Amino acid sequence: MRIGILGATGPAGSGLAARLASVGFDVVLGSRSKYKAMEVRDSLVTRWADHDLEIEASDSAGAAEADVVVIATPWDAAASTAASVSKQLDGKVVISMANALAKVGHEFQPLVPPRGSVAASVQAAVPRSLVAAALHHVPAKELGHLGEPVESDVLVCSDHPEATEVTIGIVSRIPDLRPLDAGQLSNAAPIEAFAAVLLQLNVRYKTRVAVRFTGLHDL
Amino acid sequence: MRIGILGATGPAGSGLAARLASVGFDVVLGSRSKYKAMEVRDSLVTRWADHDLEIEASDSAGAAEADVVVIATPWDAAASTAASVSKQLDGKVVISMANALAKVGHEFQPLVPPRGSVAASVQAAVPRSLVAAALHHVPAKELGHLGEPVESDVLVCSDHPEATEVTIGIVSRIPDLRPLDAGQLSNAAPIEAFAAVLLQLNVRYKTRVAVRFTGLHDL
Repeated sequence: MRIGILGATGPAGSGLAARLASVGFDVVLGSRSKYKAMEVRDSLVTRWADHDLEIEASDSAGAAEADVVVIATPWDAAASTAASVSKQLDGKVVISMANALAKVGHEFQPLVPPRGSVAASVQAAVPRSLVAAALHHVPAKELGHLGEPVESDVLVCSDHPEATEVTIGIVSRIPDLRPLDAGQLSNAAPIEAFAAVLLQLNVRYKTRVAVRFTGLHDL
Repeated sequence: MRIGILGATGPAGSGLAARLASVGFDVVLGSRSKYKAMEVRDSLVTRWADHDLEIEASDSAGAAEADVVVIATPWDAAASTAASVSKQLDGKVVISMANALAKVGHEFQPLVPPRGSVAASVQAAVPRSLVAAALHHVPAKELGHLGEPVESDVLVCSDHPEATEVTIGIVSRIPDLRPLDAGQLSNAAPIEAFAAVLLQLNVRYKTRVAVRFTGLHDL
């Protein structure tokens, strides 16, 4: 399966790209600038030379040609980036992973984007795509450290069962990530907002937290 | 320390009352009807006869005379209940634990109360009290099963460091609950809303989930 990543030159996108390529996916890094994508591609392939990563670089339209497309831009560019390649995204599973947060003083606070969540904004921008929200609580930096496992539950929600299924399938390929079906896209709002709490715990306890749910041991 | 619980006849309030009494706190059940509080008190004391629970029953004003007061009413009664005993709550630590949720079809969806969260509504209703938000993600029913531990992280947030400290102190007395400082009261909004995600997981996976953060093993 080819996975395109829009906004792949940021920390979340490049970390996810490396991790997905490390478990065998063909990954296409997409960026507004194809050359910036090439630079990040070269840097990932060099850094993890022993992993033989299959990563291509392209502009956004090229990355959006992939089978499944992840929107990893900053939150305020997510919907417009999806809209700019809506033709390529038509009928496809699109994964939204951005959180809308603002730094107020020393704290991160959640913002309420149009439609209630970033993922809902993306779904509204590409109504013929099957948008799932996922990967909001996985620490981006750790995701890109291929030498170390990232232990986290990954909440997936969507109004399209197919999008939930495909996204859960992708996440389940990554060791130590446990994908969970968190219902309809309405839940993207609390899932995205909760990222502010995780960041706050990171600051307070000088660490990188991730979420694990108890009570699901038999999955 | 005496802890008063307003709305103590509901599942969250009575479960918390039993649990707090079981670890040695003097608990005062408060309800609009003193007689309903007495009925619930008798039922808890009988059910857990071997625990020698120290539980009194009172009306709301009587329970609000305690050292620390928990608001365990349904979310839409939290602010008005606090306001009704504002004189008794003056200068005290008040813990808000309600989540504003609506059942839409088969799913729970978070509501946005005035001021952004239930806890912020309560703080606005009793501006001379020190409101902390806590205990939103602990399964209420399990909390009342004294025979079994409840394993969960408990996010605490407040605009008053003293309220955070006192609340963390209370929660830390309950085995297997781990209190965490989640910053200012602005974070009550995502914490409360996230309860919808937990309920959704409960429905989807036919279980009772609770939250544990990874990355905090040294606390």
